[in-house]
Amino acid sequence: MPNPMKDAWRAGRAVVNGWISIPSAFGAELMAKAGFDALTVDMQHGIQDYASAVACMQAIAAHPVVPVVRVPWNEPGIIGKVLDAGAMGVICPMVNSAAEARALVDACRYPPLGQRSFGPIRAAIYGQAGSYFATANEDVAVIAMIETKQALDNLESILDVPGIDGVYIGPGDLGLSMGLQPMLDRKEPEVLAAYDRVLEQANKRGIIAGIHNATPEYALTMVQRGFRFVTVYNDAATVATGAIRDVAVMRKG
Amino acid sequence: MPNPMKDAWRAGRAVVNGWISIPSAFGAELMAKAGFDALTVDMQHGIQDYASAVACMQAIAAHPVVPVVRVPWNEPGIIGKVLDAGAMGVICPMVNSAAEARALVDACRYPPLGQRSFGPIRAAIYGQAGSYFATANEDVAVIAMIETKQALDNLESILDVPGIDGVYIGPGDLGLSMGLQPMLDRKEPEVLAAYDRVLEQANKRGIIAGIHNATPEYALTMVQRGFRFVTVYNDAATVATGAIRDVAVMRKG
Amino acid sequence: MPNPMKDAWRAGRAVVNGWISIPSAFGAELMAKAGFDALTVDMQHGIQDYASAVACMQAIAAHPVVPVVRVPWNEPGIIGKVLDAGAMGVICPMVNSAAEARALVDACRYPPLGQRSFGPIRAAIYGQAGSYFATANEDVAVIAMIETKQALDNLESILDVPGIDGVYIGPGDLGLSMGLQPMLDRKEPEVLAAYDRVLEQANKRGIIAGIHNATPEYALTMVQRGFRFVTVYNDAATVATGAIRDVAVMRKG
Amino acid sequence: MPNPMKDAWRAGRAVVNGWISIPSAFGAELMAKAGFDALTVDMQHGIQDYASAVACMQAIAAHPVVPVVRVPWNEPGIIGKVLDAGAMGVICPMVNSAAEARALVDACRYPPLGQRSFGPIRAAIYGQAGSYFATANEDVAVIAMIETKQALDNLESILDVPGIDGVYIGPGDLGLSMGLQPMLDRKEPEVLAAYDRVLEQANKRGIIAGIHNATPEYALTMVQRGFRFVTVYNDAATVATGAIRDVAVMRKG
Amino acid sequence: MPNPMKDAWRAGRAVVNGWISIPSAFGAELMAKAGFDALTVDMQHGIQDYASAVACMQAIAAHPVVPVVRVPWNEPGIIGKVLDAGAMGVICPMVNSAAEARALVDACRYPPLGQRSFGPIRAAIYGQAGSYFATANEDVAVIAMIETKQALDNLESILDVPGIDGVYIGPGDLGLSMGLQPMLDRKEPEVLAAYDRVLEQANKRGIIAGIHNATPEYALTMVQRGFRFVTVYNDAATVATGAIRDVAVMRKG
Amino acid sequence: MPNPMKDAWRAGRAVVNGWISIPSAFGAELMAKAGFDALTVDMQHGIQDYASAVACMQAIAAHPVVPVVRVPWNEPGIIGKVLDAGAMGVICPMVNSAAEARALVDACRYPPLGQRSFGPIRAAIYGQAGSYFATANEDVAVIAMIETKQALDNLESILDVPGIDGVYIGPGDLGLSMGLQPMLDRKEPEVLAAYDRVLEQANKRGIIAGIHNATPEYALTMVQRGFRFVTVYNDAATVATGAIRDVAVMRKG
Repeated sequence: MPNPMKDAWRAGRAVVNGWISIPSAFGAELMAKAGFDALTVDMQHGIQDYASAVACMQAIAAHPVVPVVRVPWNEPGIIGKVLDAGAMGVICPMVNSAAEARALVDACRYPPLGQRSFGPIRAAIYGQAGSYFATANEDVAVIAMIETKQALDNLESILDVPGIDGVYIGPGDLGLSMGLQPMLDRKEPEVLAAYDRVLEQANKRGIIAGIHNATPEYALTMVQRGFRFVTVYNDAATVATGAIRDVAVMRKG
Repeated sequence: MPNPMKDAWRAGRAVVNGWISIPSAFGAELMAKAGFDALTVDMQHGIQDYASAVACMQAIAAHPVVPVVRVPWNEPGIIGKVLDAGAMGVICPMVNSAAEARALVDACRYPPLGQRSFGPIRAAIYGQAGSYFATANEDVAVIAMIETKQALDNLESILDVPGIDGVYIGPGDLGLSMGLQPMLDRKEPEVLAAYDRVLEQANKRGIIAGIHNATPEYALTMVQRGFRFVTVYNDAATVATGAIRDVAVMRKG
Repeated sequence: MPNPMKDAWRAGRAVVNGWISIPSAFGAELMAKAGFDALTVDMQHGIQDYASAVACMQAIAAHPVVPVVRVPWNEPGIIGKVLDAGAMGVICPMVNSAAEARALVDACRYPPLGQRSFGPIRAAIYGQAGSYFATANEDVAVIAMIETKQALDNLESILDVPGIDGVYIGPGDLGLSMGLQPMLDRKEPEVLAAYDRVLEQANKRGIIAGIHNATPEYALTMVQRGFRFVTVYNDAATVATGAIRDVAVMRKG
Repeated sequence: MPNPMKDAWRAGRAVVNGWISIPSAFGAELMAKAGFDALTVDMQHGIQDYASAVACMQAIAAHPVVPVVRVPWNEPGIIGKVLDAGAMGVICPMVNSAAEARALVDACRYPPLGQRSFGPIRAAIYGQAGSYFATANEDVAVIAMIETKQALDNLESILDVPGIDGVYIGPGDLGLSMGLQPMLDRKEPEVLAAYDRVLEQANKRGIIAGIHNATPEYALTMVQRGFRFVTVYNDAATVATGAIRDVAVMRKG
Repeated sequence: MPNPMKDAWRAGRAVVNGWISIPSAFGAELMAKAGFDALTVDMQHGIQDYASAVACMQAIAAHPVVPVVRVPWNEPGIIGKVLDAGAMGVICPMVNSAAEARALVDACRYPPLGQRSFGPIRAAIYGQAGSYFATANEDVAVIAMIETKQALDNLESILDVPGIDGVYIGPGDLGLSMGLQPMLDRKEPEVLAAYDRVLEQANKRGIIAGIHNATPEYALTMVQRGFRFVTVYNDAATVATGAIRDVAVMRKG
Repeated sequence: MPNPMKDAWRAGRAVVNGWISIPSAFGAELMAKAGFDALTVDMQHGIQDYASAVACMQAIAAHPVVPVVRVPWNEPGIIGKVLDAGAMGVICPMVNSAAEARALVDACRYPPLGQRSFGPIRAAIYGQAGSYFATANEDVAVIAMIETKQALDNLESILDVPGIDGVYIGPGDLGLSMGLQPMLDRKEPEVLAAYDRVLEQANKRGIIAGIHNATPEYALTMVQRGFRFVTVYNDAATVATGAIRDVAVMRKG
């Protein structure tokens, strides 16, 4: 079980990612059939915990989509758990320094690259236990969120930490940290300049960059800008806006 | 706690209903905020059981929306349970005869109108236990699905059963039963004629008629036709079609 | 694993029963330590389903208390499931005729006494599978609720059905059926006369009678009257009234 | 999504089935990887309810194994729910007469063959909604349990009901009904004679016969006898006997 | 959605708080109706996790009660999660130094006051996303537990950390730390002197002080002493003591 | 409620331990009946979270088996929670230094030995709250995993930390850390030499040593070597290998 997301990156293709905030394996299945390259269970801001994240990963395993988890925080306990449960990618919020990046790699990589503990109880179901170990350090995508001014200040040293595969921009928090309102699909020149700097430094090191978006239309512009992991869909937002729209049609009618 | 859905019907207004198929209280909350008059937890075809139905009703109770449950079948055990848990309306599938309509009323109404057992454990939280009993037979909406040729054949006798507040057309099953494909938002003249007959007979007896729809646009035409309970939104369909649409935008881009 | 509840009845002692309406194994444990003879998971009016009932029975198994389940209705599927999951007693609502009593016995007793299907998956954990079968028909308590005028009319024929161990009076529904308000701890002479008739006919046949009460004080009078299975505690009521009382102390203070 | 189990039957091959009694999607995944042709979630005697059955079916969907559910009883509500949730086979306990077989078919087949209500919410994820409907009546396996003397007496009329694909022998209950102990892997001549009669009558009508076994060794003899759906593994028994064995090794050592 | 708890404090009123230890949304609803000003889900010592905490907060949202969570520990991952899920107050155990108080504020406040990550997925349901952000730093109550001698030693520096709204005394742990038995409703002079010192220093800075109590009678004395957040009720204790009392009545009778 | 595991150690007997990876209370019950001295819920690599760990501990409480939890990481929040929920032993992964051992003891022991917060909500159900406190520091087994070269380097200082009752070897991670493949039941001389060194240093201090094994046969050799806590059974492995074996028998047949 190689990681198709990494194949895409090696081929220069952008990975289209969906976002699972609703803690329902059935909702996850509906999304998995839609053709995303990857689906991310959001354990940070989503209404998800470990049990629901596992259920979502089980439910999407029947479909050709890479299971990714955004962990709630840079804590080795939960990072190890989601990897053992089969996540092929980990997105970690608030990686603001090289030390934090190093801690993230330690939690995600087996020795000698890191200090992940061995026991891929569900992850190894889809391969042989031996083969999982043989390739996990290569296959698992480790993605650090760059979402503060501090992270931008430390960008190069963060990116220099061996074992980081990608960075992921959180436009809401990054804006907040820059004294702006929290929002997605941003257009402020200073923000876009920061994006370009992240892309440039990441590309230079063979690291991909990703970004969280509110709409596929904006996400397309980000792919053109150079991002290779773009989130374009959020189940909770879709449920809410669809409901609001349908009610509005009725109230007008 | 009178039932605002019944107030709407008394005032001649149509009730706009959403459909909860995903077993998530959080998803239900998102819908509850959108402005529906009612939300129905679908325990028949939805991925819902009693526990998830209760959780959904708890989650929407903070919003001015009437909790309705479509039960899996015309069985008194589960009907009593959802009413005790606070459903202010019950939609029952496949009511094909006066005897089945009578069984439905028996399960939903306290004596002497029916044989519902007393114990409104959660329903009474929102009122006094005594006041719930005093008005439950009046407030609870009992809605029988008319969705087979047999039901159409027995329509008058079904509608004559005291205690039925409404009928609800299931266009998929009704079509199937008429030898057509199962689908919603139908336009076949013989189907529309059946709808009109249901409306006519129901109106004659002060019973409202409702219908399951795929789109609010079609639902508006049904309101004009005379339906007073129209489902216009389904969370599962919304999650799926939104995802397919967003992926398509990306693949084209 | 003989059934201590039946031992008590054979010895002429009354069984003190608690009522589990809150679907929490932890809450059930708290009750199990209090010294009840039996605890009943209420799947009819309680916020309980099969999964929560199993969890409650697992949680109380460490304590010397007999696990009983009130099933939602006289349906063989759920009756078999709770027995297989370890219930040593079944209380069935709304047994209004000999035919319904016979159906209840069929669901609870192995052939040749009834038609229960063999597979005591959890029940047999606490004995040997072979020994469970050998004594289950003797050990399981089958208790029919007498809670309508119709049941009173059919009382003798219901009690004559072989395999019924006990009857249980639901004062709320019985009152409703007699044209009274639904309430517990009743004092109307015609109701008490009905209780006495149930006691007399049951005793005559070696069947015990039980009753649902709101307070232990009233329950004691029922024990004196002859009842041998008395419910005296309800977790939901206790949580609610305790909270109301404590808030009142504060508001006065 | 044709049903590989039916393909096997058409080709004369026996289907090797595993039995899921532990309500854990993770346990189900472990089994799904072992190479069974089918896995059956046992909602009758297993510690399973609808929610856990759905979770198990979601978890095994990534593997080439046919999802089957044994329902708790011959009740249309739960039968429709498990089919809508994706079961490709239904095993129904205690089908003792042609009328009960007819009710089972009604619950499992769309009109005009039966009266199943349309709404394959999860089942259709793995195909197009339209294509599911087109082939469901052909693809879904409807399997009636023959496990009482009464069923043997009515065998021919049960098998003559159109829409039954298979019968499944429950050796425990069948033995009980014949006045024997409940057990599996039976060797009594009168029981084996009954098996042969079932096989003969089923084969004559193009219906397959299946049987519940405790060991694969015995199951092989049943395949040779003519059974084409053989259960050979039970997760709960495996957990228990494995634990007992390992503890015994330690206590001896 | 301003925070009524903060309004009370501004008006000098004491907030009456209940404690949810049983992981049941239904139990929480029963409490919510009793008239508490606030209800706290105890994720530290209660049998609560994130999923049950969310369910409890959903269930009480229909009632005018402020949702508070005591987190298991001073860890940013879980603090962010409960705030995003709608907690309007956070009680954090074992804040023993200014550095720990600063970490707590960082986890609870958006920049520039702290480093909370933006994504109020459920919290924003009850307002507009924009309006939640605008007022969250003002509305969310951040409450540090003072429950060790070390915390008393560092009291002034802890209280000087900007962004702390309140302190909460844990009498059990505080006693333990002072070499006494762990208990509530304490009367030792040295303990009461410590309480008074906390009150004095907190008041001086416009910070409220709260305390955990076993009885409303004792809590009233604490209100008179100056505490403005008093816990007076615990669901688990209520279930247990009520059961013990009712059983005792029966055993005596 | 003294801890029988500690009694065994005082008597020089080895404790036979089973491993619960499948998040099912029912599976745990099956294991509990098999005669293990202890059962460990694996929250690190098992598919377990806090809620499932509590359910497993509730389910095994009816059997004479000591409940142990392997926590996901050396974090005080979760350690306190599992102890409050009734764990009588804690196994903590990756204790690599005296400081980490000290943190573990702080999380597990009440003052003055450590800094555990008082609130044994479920733990105290099985004794009196007062008696739990009186003996918890003595009864709870605190077990540090030695599973890296770094831990071996720091072995003596780790073992010198007051309050550590035992060490537990993780052969997979230890091997990894030594540049070997991750596996159990190891035979490499350098690994066995490390085991002996751990045993010698632990014994010298009255600390027991334990080890994770794949088979009881190997575990017996470890008991002879001096280990006094040996894991011999894993539910997930048992389910998987049993299924593979039974399918293989069928495919050969």
